[in-house]
Amino acid sequence: MQLKQIGEFNFICHIQSDTIYNPDTVIQGIGDDCAIYNTSEHVNQLISTDTMVEGIHFSFHYMMPYDVGYRLMSANLSDIAAMGGTPKQVVLSVAAPDYIDTDILDEIYRGIKDQCKKYGVNILGGDTVRIEGPMVWTVTIIGEVPQGCAVLRSGAQISDVVGVTNYLGYAATGLSALMYSLDGYTMTKIGHQRPEPQVFLGQRLRDLGVHSMNDISDGLASELNEIASASSVSIVIEEKAIPLHAETYALAEHLQTNPVDYALYGGEDFQLVFTAPKSLVPQLQDMDGISLIGEVLSGPTVVQMVTPDKTVKTIEAKGYNHFHES
Amino acid sequence: MQLKQIGEFNFICHIQSDTIYNPDTVIQGIGDDCAIYNTSEHVNQLISTDTMVEGIHFSFHYMMPYDVGYRLMSANLSDIAAMGGTPKQVVLSVAAPDYIDTDILDEIYRGIKDQCKKYGVNILGGDTVRIEGPMVWTVTIIGEVPQGCAVLRSGAQISDVVGVTNYLGYAATGLSALMYSLDGYTMTKIGHQRPEPQVFLGQRLRDLGVHSMNDISDGLASELNEIASASSVSIVIEEKAIPLHAETYALAEHLQTNPVDYALYGGEDFQLVFTAPKSLVPQLQDMDGISLIGEVLSGPTVVQMVTPDKTVKTIEAKGYNHFHES
Repeated sequence: MQLKQIGEFNFICHIQSDTIYNPDTVIQGIGDDCAIYNTSEHVNQLISTDTMVEGIHFSFHYMMPYDVGYRLMSANLSDIAAMGGTPKQVVLSVAAPDYIDTDILDEIYRGIKDQCKKYGVNILGGDTVRIEGPMVWTVTIIGEVPQGCAVLRSGAQISDVVGVTNYLGYAATGLSALMYSLDGYTMTKIGHQRPEPQVFLGQRLRDLGVHSMNDISDGLASELNEIASASSVSIVIEEKAIPLHAETYALAEHLQTNPVDYALYGGEDFQLVFTAPKSLVPQLQDMDGISLIGEVLSGPTVVQMVTPDKTVKTIEAKGYNHFHES
Repeated sequence: MQLKQIGEFNFICHIQSDTIYNPDTVIQGIGDDCAIYNTSEHVNQLISTDTMVEGIHFSFHYMMPYDVGYRLMSANLSDIAAMGGTPKQVVLSVAAPDYIDTDILDEIYRGIKDQCKKYGVNILGGDTVRIEGPMVWTVTIIGEVPQGCAVLRSGAQISDVVGVTNYLGYAATGLSALMYSLDGYTMTKIGHQRPEPQVFLGQRLRDLGVHSMNDISDGLASELNEIASASSVSIVIEEKAIPLHAETYALAEHLQTNPVDYALYGGEDFQLVFTAPKSLVPQLQDMDGISLIGEVLSGPTVVQMVTPDKTVKTIEAKGYNHFHES
């Protein structure tokens, strides 16, 4: 059935069931001019908004509608994770052409709802409007963090170690494999289609007392430059310490590319990069999924990488900037 | 200059100054993965999201870019007004074609910022992305209301009076005058281009103890039906009690249309409709900008209107539904 046959209002009614996964905070969900909710005591509120446009940020060539919803939520949850926060509430908006099959919208919502359920996040609002053009999804997410404990990107201090979570370049590997129609690369293809935000690791790193943190949505190069710039420090990383998956090495060999480029310039891993005082190194080394890859130094706000042959390369902030033409 | 020449990141930097109009609640504004803010004590949080698409919800034929921003914010502020709340924070997202002149975006932001400044609302986040299609703006607004005092549309009680604020059909009159290229109609044209949300009246009505409230974004017919349906009551209004502006009567005479239709079916007045116990009638009659137009009755959830010749007409919920083809 097409959206124009069911109507905007009926579609909203249709999707508004099964939207509350953490009822303690909700006084009134979808259905009035506003939803009503409560915040916890002794916390700060976090807020972020993200928009994904069909054909620019996602495509049904490489993703199922369910995956589009799943990844949309992962991107937003990742912004809360990057502050060390706990996600609480979201509101969604979709602009869709009126000829769209409501089964596609249903599947996107199913992906969104499954991620909300997993992280105990309520869907408190939605707007469904018509567009003569590509689908546009916007999610605003609200989270909480203990008072004064949000981890900013501006907190890096000289002599901090630099760490990252899990594998980098993972989603970019999967996307490349899909674009080149390569068999195999099963894990990284899933990594592109259903990336997982690092909400729980973000909270653990916050509790441990890391100094600065970013999520890796635009590639490691871009995120490290953001930390260096916001904190007015210099960052040096070791190329061989960057954690890459076996499929990334395999793909780079197959395509004759540099494997580390997937980590530096590939988008949407939704892993975390952070800096932490040296005193935390033993605890960080004991944690699963943490790699220490560099150090924070004084000096100009620049990011450099030491290659295996000990050459020092400056890492520019190029990444996934939606407007610059490459 | 075009957006693609300045780049997404530089454009965000460019607009992120002058965004905090109520600094007491803000710990960190735009610039990290999330913004950080605080909520007040003894309040509930309100949240709502709205999307406006170029060519569907606004057009540069009848509005200047400044007005588009102004009205976008009015629509969101109105959702908070409809609950009797105080607006506090917003986040914005825009999907824009990369050939768009940044002067147009600047003007839209100026309209948004002027409304935020007027109501003491902070802009805490923004996303700017590229689209191959029409501009899409999404605003999420957060407000507060004293604990347990939010005015729902489901609170109407039998024997309540029905009231509205200011003039209805005002924006629709202005839009019609613009579409027919008619001279004059100065006030209602401004009413279409720069509608004003009824935030302060909404708070006064909440403090007074009204039972139910809605903002009039889709015409009085649609909003009254929402209250009747949510509250399981019947509503009867008097046609001659509906407050219409002199320009609405003049336009209806000129176009040989029924003046009350502008109020019943015209969109985006952003006035308020409410029901209140009869005991409040003296106080409501003393307030500027309040008209009492009907009564809440028991019986089937239906809205009826008594015409000047005492005919009773059922008022259907047709209004500004974006997906139904008329």
